[in-house]
Amino acid sequence: MDVADIHILSVGTALPGPPVDNATLAGHFGMGDIWEQWIDAFVGTRTRHLAVDLESGQVSHSLADLGESAARQALERAGLDPIDIDVVVLNTATPDQLMPTTANIVADRLGINNIPTYQVQSGCSGAVQAIELGRLLLLAGGHRTALVIGGDLCARFFDPKTDLNALPPGELVNMVLFGDGAGAVVLSTEPTPGATLLRSPVSRFTGLGRAPGQALEWFGATDQDGRPFAVEDYKAIEEHVPEMAAEILDELLDELDWDRADLTHLLPPQLSGKMTRTIMERLGDLPLREISCVADTGNTGNGLPYLQLERAVAEMGPGDRAIGIAIESSKWITSGYALERL
Amino acid sequence: MDVADIHILSVGTALPGPPVDNATLAGHFGMGDIWEQWIDAFVGTRTRHLAVDLESGQVSHSLADLGESAARQALERAGLDPIDIDVVVLNTATPDQLMPTTANIVADRLGINNIPTYQVQSGCSGAVQAIELGRLLLLAGGHRTALVIGGDLCARFFDPKTDLNALPPGELVNMVLFGDGAGAVVLSTEPTPGATLLRSPVSRFTGLGRAPGQALEWFGATDQDGRPFAVEDYKAIEEHVPEMAAEILDELLDELDWDRADLTHLLPPQLSGKMTRTIMERLGDLPLREISCVADTGNTGNGLPYLQLERAVAEMGPGDRAIGIAIESSKWITSGYALERL
Repeated sequence: MDVADIHILSVGTALPGPPVDNATLAGHFGMGDIWEQWIDAFVGTRTRHLAVDLESGQVSHSLADLGESAARQALERAGLDPIDIDVVVLNTATPDQLMPTTANIVADRLGINNIPTYQVQSGCSGAVQAIELGRLLLLAGGHRTALVIGGDLCARFFDPKTDLNALPPGELVNMVLFGDGAGAVVLSTEPTPGATLLRSPVSRFTGLGRAPGQALEWFGATDQDGRPFAVEDYKAIEEHVPEMAAEILDELLDELDWDRADLTHLLPPQLSGKMTRTIMERLGDLPLREISCVADTGNTGNGLPYLQLERAVAEMGPGDRAIGIAIESSKWITSGYALERL
Repeated sequence: MDVADIHILSVGTALPGPPVDNATLAGHFGMGDIWEQWIDAFVGTRTRHLAVDLESGQVSHSLADLGESAARQALERAGLDPIDIDVVVLNTATPDQLMPTTANIVADRLGINNIPTYQVQSGCSGAVQAIELGRLLLLAGGHRTALVIGGDLCARFFDPKTDLNALPPGELVNMVLFGDGAGAVVLSTEPTPGATLLRSPVSRFTGLGRAPGQALEWFGATDQDGRPFAVEDYKAIEEHVPEMAAEILDELLDELDWDRADLTHLLPPQLSGKMTRTIMERLGDLPLREISCVADTGNTGNGLPYLQLERAVAEMGPGDRAIGIAIESSKWITSGYALERL
């Protein structure tokens, strides 16, 4: 075990409201059976949770709400109190406000004070980046315990009154692809019985000269000028993500000196159910358990790796080895990490 | 010298357009001499640079534009090429988009690839937080050189057509307090002749149970509902910031085992010229050089500590010792660092 390894003591998650299925979504937007089948076949998401009520348009949860819930659950599962936390890191693409940071709002609600708190602006690789920062802050400060929280809410980009027939495909897909959710992990430099070793978190920018695969705008007081708020280049994502996933998998196996046959679990990227299937095919025949949740939760962005981690930590037994992969497609960050149950 | 110390090889900065003075601002908004005098006396900012043209309302620069310029200047001054950079961190409260991150856009423009890139969402303590992360990423990865960039643009909150007489004081002050700007530093684990040692960067959340002193909203597709975009509790800031500044100054002196008399330079918080004067009074009689730029540049938020650093690094001579302090008042982060020229 490397001295710089850390342990996942617990994982907590929070999803808003009941699952919303494709039939409900199709019914609400006045779309027919064909559209519902298109979601099933080409997106692969069956349900998602939304922090906005479809009928009333009312927003039911903030990111701070979900982050706080996930953090409290993770703390409870670790048997820790907020006072035990030495560092807070939060990752998101959709903070509640630009300032104050959602990290600090959650820290305040938990009763945390006088420790470093960071917020990482990020896409789908955000959990890996935040966990890596949590690890570095622990190791540098001689501290023991970090609370790392992440999540996204699409409420501000999800208009229940949208006319879907009027949207170009790059925007239409956003209405079905995403879900809202958050998660949290408690990391420790010291193991406890049943803890999962987190090894080799790595992330790197791989977008040089590559057009953005996604864009998410924000607006202030002076600039609502009709630009689209969220767009996706789904074809570019489909082209690049499987290749990047294969690359980081091999790199991590190599660094850890693990064989493919040593792997018991894989946590693949979760842009959509369809994409995950494509990625798994690209990775070739792997005799292992795939830990995916996107079909149930939609793509919850910065929250999603935590939802996978919760499942992985529950499933893994002594000696099990897993690799998790997350690809940020807005301007391309390749990231991954390994898990080992000793 | 601590093994974890790092060296500032260079600083670069970028300010958009010519300086805009208070008379110009008063003239543009149809405010009189009294208002101009109020800015002088109660805010203390004489000029600022704006990334928006007052007459046409046209935005002239993005944060990526300013960040790229500052980064190129810092690299040139360090005698380095983008290929020499091992880590990029960018801090801002006002990214150009939620995704892609501005950090990745700047990295792409510089020709950087395959290295970790992070973006820290932050207020006025952002430079200290980002520099600390740059340091940790260098030390953890066995790397040598980090490029840390920070800045803010108020263009999206600065409406040249605003009727200032209709604004409540908490919003009015925003129209004169802020300026646009960015900066960058090149950090290295190895010293070069003339480099400045950066010691003990520290930041911590100190906002438990304390109401936000500032808020900055962002909007998506569904929520432009007339909430104010940017508000300040100037009184709370005036009450807390001097005390926090005094506290972190004493803490750093204590940690470094320096006396007040050892200090040759101080880089105080720069919310406004008036606030800086109040802070300097609160800190007591210090026989040193104050490094302030807020009267010339306005509060450039995440960019400001870099503007101070540029002046400090140019002024400091062998044996000089400085302390820099930055307070994030949106939900209160106290931060500071020390500089030493060997």
